[in-house]
Amino acid sequence: MFKKRENIAEIEEGKYLSPKFDENDLIPVITTDFKNGGILMHGYMNKEALKKTIETREAHYWSRSRKSIWRKGEKSGFVQKVKEIRIDDDQDSVWLAVDIGEGASCHVGYRSCFYRSIPLGNIENSEKIEMEFKETEKTFDPKKVYKDEPNPTKL
Amino acid sequence: MFKKRENIAEIEEGKYLSPKFDENDLIPVITTDFKNGGILMHGYMNKEALKKTIETREAHYWSRSRKSIWRKGEKSGFVQKVKEIRIDDDQDSVWLAVDIGEGASCHVGYRSCFYRSIPLGNIENSEKIEMEFKETEKTFDPKKVYKDEPNPTKL
Repeated sequence: MFKKRENIAEIEEGKYLSPKFDENDLIPVITTDFKNGGILMHGYMNKEALKKTIETREAHYWSRSRKSIWRKGEKSGFVQKVKEIRIDDDQDSVWLAVDIGEGASCHVGYRSCFYRSIPLGNIENSEKIEMEFKETEKTFDPKKVYKDEPNPTKL
Repeated sequence: MFKKRENIAEIEEGKYLSPKFDENDLIPVITTDFKNGGILMHGYMNKEALKKTIETREAHYWSRSRKSIWRKGEKSGFVQKVKEIRIDDDQDSVWLAVDIGEGASCHVGYRSCFYRSIPLGNIENSEKIEMEFKETEKTFDPKKVYKDEPNPTKL
């Protein structure tokens, strides 16, 4: 169903979907809140996750930590209803605009995964760089929602 | 200057910057227009590009096609002035909010790289998937701006 990548002008200027999956068969995905445009998370899809997302209108990703297809919300209940999917010029990254209602997208408990801001300016002589929290209250308690699920974050 | 990744709770809940670079020494970057929140592009940084971006307040990426540090706008003039940088829960992706004035971010000529929308619904029996153009007018003429530069898009 995805057109073979044969011609650069067609990939960039054409109307047919020809996604490029990387050496791990994944394509990166940006997910935003369709209501306010805020970035919720950055993830990855394989071919099957992209197909399921297009067909079911619910976001599916590839979990690199669990090495499996991951229907977002299957454990937490925080399903992402897809309002729009876009792809970029060279068709190697995807943007999902989703509806999460009053829910959250970050397994740590915040609404967005991007809850910390990096200060700008000279860091040459900094031993550590201290960030600022932009979300200070969690939307949910991850201990209650995920119970004994292993944490997907890896060192 | 980046704190060593030693402890998952600290990476997720702590205040110190400990970015994770992948097997190619890169971290993915989402770039948005700070004025309206729209997604402009998806790119990658290595450690040096992240440091230069933080220090100069101008977006620097790693060009995977040219295999070099890339100060966005060095050829096109479409510099990205960084207004804010955030990092996600497990510190393996970055979000830049930038000011591009009346400029553009896509080498094809559109303001955003995400100018095409993928239709939702059943695709099981589709031979090809036809997308919709959401930007129909280019912001600049790439032939005039880039002249004989090679196209960064790869099959």
